[in-house]
Amino acid sequence: MKIELINGVSRGTLEIIARKISDRTITDRILQNEFTAVGLCQGDIVSMLVASDIAEKTSDVVVSEISGVCPQHITCLGIFGDVTSVEASLAVIESRLNKK
Amino acid sequence: MKIELINGVSRGTLEIIARKISDRTITDRILQNEFTAVGLCQGDIVSMLVASDIAEKTSDVVVSEISGVCPQHITCLGIFGDVTSVEASLAVIESRLNKK
Amino acid sequence: MKIELINGVSRGTLEIIARKISDRTITDRILQNEFTAVGLCQGDIVSMLVASDIAEKTSDVVVSEISGVCPQHITCLGIFGDVTSVEASLAVIESRLNKK
Amino acid sequence: MKIELINGVSRGTLEIIARKISDRTITDRILQNEFTAVGLCQGDIVSMLVASDIAEKTSDVVVSEISGVCPQHITCLGIFGDVTSVEASLAVIESRLNKK
Amino acid sequence: MKIELINGVSRGTLEIIARKISDRTITDRILQNEFTAVGLCQGDIVSMLVASDIAEKTSDVVVSEISGVCPQHITCLGIFGDVTSVEASLAVIESRLNKK
Amino acid sequence: MKIELINGVSRGTLEIIARKISDRTITDRILQNEFTAVGLCQGDIVSMLVASDIAEKTSDVVVSEISGVCPQHITCLGIFGDVTSVEASLAVIESRLNKK
Repeated sequence: MKIELINGVSRGTLEIIARKISDRTITDRILQNEFTAVGLCQGDIVSMLVASDIAEKTSDVVVSEISGVCPQHITCLGIFGDVTSVEASLAVIESRLNKK
Repeated sequence: MKIELINGVSRGTLEIIARKISDRTITDRILQNEFTAVGLCQGDIVSMLVASDIAEKTSDVVVSEISGVCPQHITCLGIFGDVTSVEASLAVIESRLNKK
Repeated sequence: MKIELINGVSRGTLEIIARKISDRTITDRILQNEFTAVGLCQGDIVSMLVASDIAEKTSDVVVSEISGVCPQHITCLGIFGDVTSVEASLAVIESRLNKK
Repeated sequence: MKIELINGVSRGTLEIIARKISDRTITDRILQNEFTAVGLCQGDIVSMLVASDIAEKTSDVVVSEISGVCPQHITCLGIFGDVTSVEASLAVIESRLNKK
Repeated sequence: MKIELINGVSRGTLEIIARKISDRTITDRILQNEFTAVGLCQGDIVSMLVASDIAEKTSDVVVSEISGVCPQHITCLGIFGDVTSVEASLAVIESRLNKK
Repeated sequence: MKIELINGVSRGTLEIIARKISDRTITDRILQNEFTAVGLCQGDIVSMLVASDIAEKTSDVVVSEISGVCPQHITCLGIFGDVTSVEASLAVIESRLNKK
């Protein structure tokens, strides 16, 4: 699973991300700059779902699939929140899924 | 076939799963927290259908494809129920499909 | 070509299969439990079409592509009928396409 | 390029083929049993277009892409006609594209 | 990048090409036999865009993506014109992109 | 990550690019020749999002995903601006993402 953290995400990047999320509640919050950081986790569907579950159980973050209308077997999870919360979630995902 | 069990699935993860299932009867039951565990089985279409058949014949679970609008040759099966039932189904799928 | 036979297909599995077939005449017959067995043949489009032709010329079965709205270069053929007819078709497909 | 010839194509197979062709004029002729044979050529888009051009310049056949709504980089060409014409086209395609 | 030239393109092949182009202005000109030759360049999106730019700067040709409704990461560029112009463009694309 | 710069992009190429961008504000600016150069970065979704963030934080450019309606796990980022700005962004992307 490929994991990246972007802090203070640039405006055009937020718009690209928002276009690839189908949950309008979350895209509205993204476009209103509610989140200062985003964690990205790319992998197969099973890993993405497990990572999503870990993130929400680890810290105060919002999770959403970043892939748009036509999901593939490789998908990308977005983890949104402040940088401390996102980092905490990514650390647990890293240790659980990439250390196997 | 890749197999994972998530127990006490977090809310955002349930919503990602529900968005990737086309059978509204099942997504309604998922969003009403009727199931406490989900088993995930990822593989080609033939393996996914065989696993689905094994799961329903093994224990009291509900099965559904998790992949959204545009299915690929790699797909993901969701097996929903209480944790004991889901674990029993996953054990038989593991022994039949991954021991070959 | 990957070949599997499921006999006495479970209900949820039938519903997953029916969702992945675009010919409504065949899905109706599937959902009314008209067929007791299903043969599954997964491969490229050319192999799938050759297998379909072999199946219909071998025994009294109904054939349909199992892949839903967005076909890929890997597709899956469903062969529906009683278990004797489906087994006969699968045996000829196996000997013609997998023995090359 | 993978090449196959089916002679006296079975009814269900013709219907699977017809569902995967977007040119209604050709699907009507297929479903009215106008063609007794079909040649199948599977490969990348460039090879498929070159094969299509060779087929029409070689014998009295009708060509169409067999892939449905969502074309991929691997596609399949159908060459329709009587068995002598289709065989003649396939022979030239074989010698030009697979002998390189 | 895979490169092919078809001169005096057959009618059915022109129709397959026209179905895979979304710019109606260009498909009209193709179907009215305005172009006597077509060059085909298949590769990833970046290479296809660079080849398109080279073709238009090299000779009097019309460029269009040949891939239909649902573009993939492998796509195909069509270069339309008389055979001399298309050959000139393909020669420069060949020397710039395949000699690296 | 594959990176290319096209300066003084040809008209047909601009139109191919514009058809593959879903943000109408950006396609309008492209078709009005507002940008003299385009940078192309092709890779997985995570790399594309990181590159987009780097580009906007590096120089005065506009970013957009170039992939059309049906995004894949391989996607392409377009970075639009004058040639100096685009070159500056590509240099930083190159050093951050391809030097790892």
